[in-house]
Amino acid sequence: MSPHAVVFDAYGTLFDVLSVVARADVTIPGDLQTLSTLWRQKQLEYTWLRSLMECYEDFWGVTDAALRAALTQLKIGASEAQLHALMQAYLSPPAFPDARPALEALRNSRRAILSNGSPAMLASAVRRNGMESCFVEVISVDKVKTYKPSPRVYALGTEALDLPAPEILFVSSNSWDVAGAKAFGYQVCWCNRSKAEMEPLGYAPDFVVSGLDQIPRLLHAG
Amino acid sequence: MSPHAVVFDAYGTLFDVLSVVARADVTIPGDLQTLSTLWRQKQLEYTWLRSLMECYEDFWGVTDAALRAALTQLKIGASEAQLHALMQAYLSPPAFPDARPALEALRNSRRAILSNGSPAMLASAVRRNGMESCFVEVISVDKVKTYKPSPRVYALGTEALDLPAPEILFVSSNSWDVAGAKAFGYQVCWCNRSKAEMEPLGYAPDFVVSGLDQIPRLLHAG
Repeated sequence: MSPHAVVFDAYGTLFDVLSVVARADVTIPGDLQTLSTLWRQKQLEYTWLRSLMECYEDFWGVTDAALRAALTQLKIGASEAQLHALMQAYLSPPAFPDARPALEALRNSRRAILSNGSPAMLASAVRRNGMESCFVEVISVDKVKTYKPSPRVYALGTEALDLPAPEILFVSSNSWDVAGAKAFGYQVCWCNRSKAEMEPLGYAPDFVVSGLDQIPRLLHAG
Repeated sequence: MSPHAVVFDAYGTLFDVLSVVARADVTIPGDLQTLSTLWRQKQLEYTWLRSLMECYEDFWGVTDAALRAALTQLKIGASEAQLHALMQAYLSPPAFPDARPALEALRNSRRAILSNGSPAMLASAVRRNGMESCFVEVISVDKVKTYKPSPRVYALGTEALDLPAPEILFVSSNSWDVAGAKAFGYQVCWCNRSKAEMEPLGYAPDFVVSGLDQIPRLLHAG
């Protein structure tokens, strides 16, 4: 395969969102693993529900609402200062260890991000990880005020790169995002680090890897 | 309040979907409570994702895919015959005990169902519960090939009843459905049997009850 550009999902793919709670400079009682998982699940649910309701709120607002709902559901008491610390941690999510080697090996390809994140959140995550020079475009769904997996979002990638979808390799760790990108027409690589099953949404990825650092080899094999 | 019609959600509101696994005539290993919950969660996720992807599959297909994915995730082995038995149980979900008293007390109001269910699934659930005479309309999202909480779905209720949304009381136990109906403009009653928290989607119900049998009193109080 020889795509003319590689577009990455951000949260869960380049950046490890499940480690945000553990890394936040805050001590709260309760099962932090369960909190991380529920926070993420509610965050995604609210993006899907608000998109369908046609009541967009940006990813910062959705993430804040999801955190509060997760804490309430788990009966974990947290002060506004603790909430603030958890949200701030979302501005500097750590990159997965395989992200930088992959991006460097792909430096001769046009690389971009296409993410649910708000422009400010994405700019912060990229800057805190020292990845400013890695991407020709950092694209937020905020431009179309809806979320993945709407085709209106995936169209932002083809527009920004001025390429047809089949000439772009889209990379995501979220299998529903993989399905959405494939339905839109991208070549799609699923980075399945956790050995999960593909969600049965009618679309399969073109490639499956267990780490981003396997992608350069895919490209050169084609 | 004096609405001119009452529109009910079906699954989770009139009919108890979480009891489907326990009532199915099938013996499978594993935690059936967890299976019920995960089956329902995946069923809803797939409706939201397929709606956003603009890749509609009807509720029977989505429910079947969700069951298979839940079984796989929980590593529960099930034969095709057992899968069939579980799916068949979805055709006769038991009504909640408060459903019939509420429908009877409301017999002087126009009553309808507006549901994600396919037409065949809804007809079966209504018939098996002997509720054929209760509803002037049983409306499926299938007509618009998308799912709740899309406003295109809620518009089916106002069209079928030929009434403006604020003159209709919409009743649901699913708080995201409550938010969607309220965003569309209905008067909305949340039947919160499980003392859950409202999902923070920017909309609150007009009324909250802990059982459907409290609704007639609401109407007469207005």
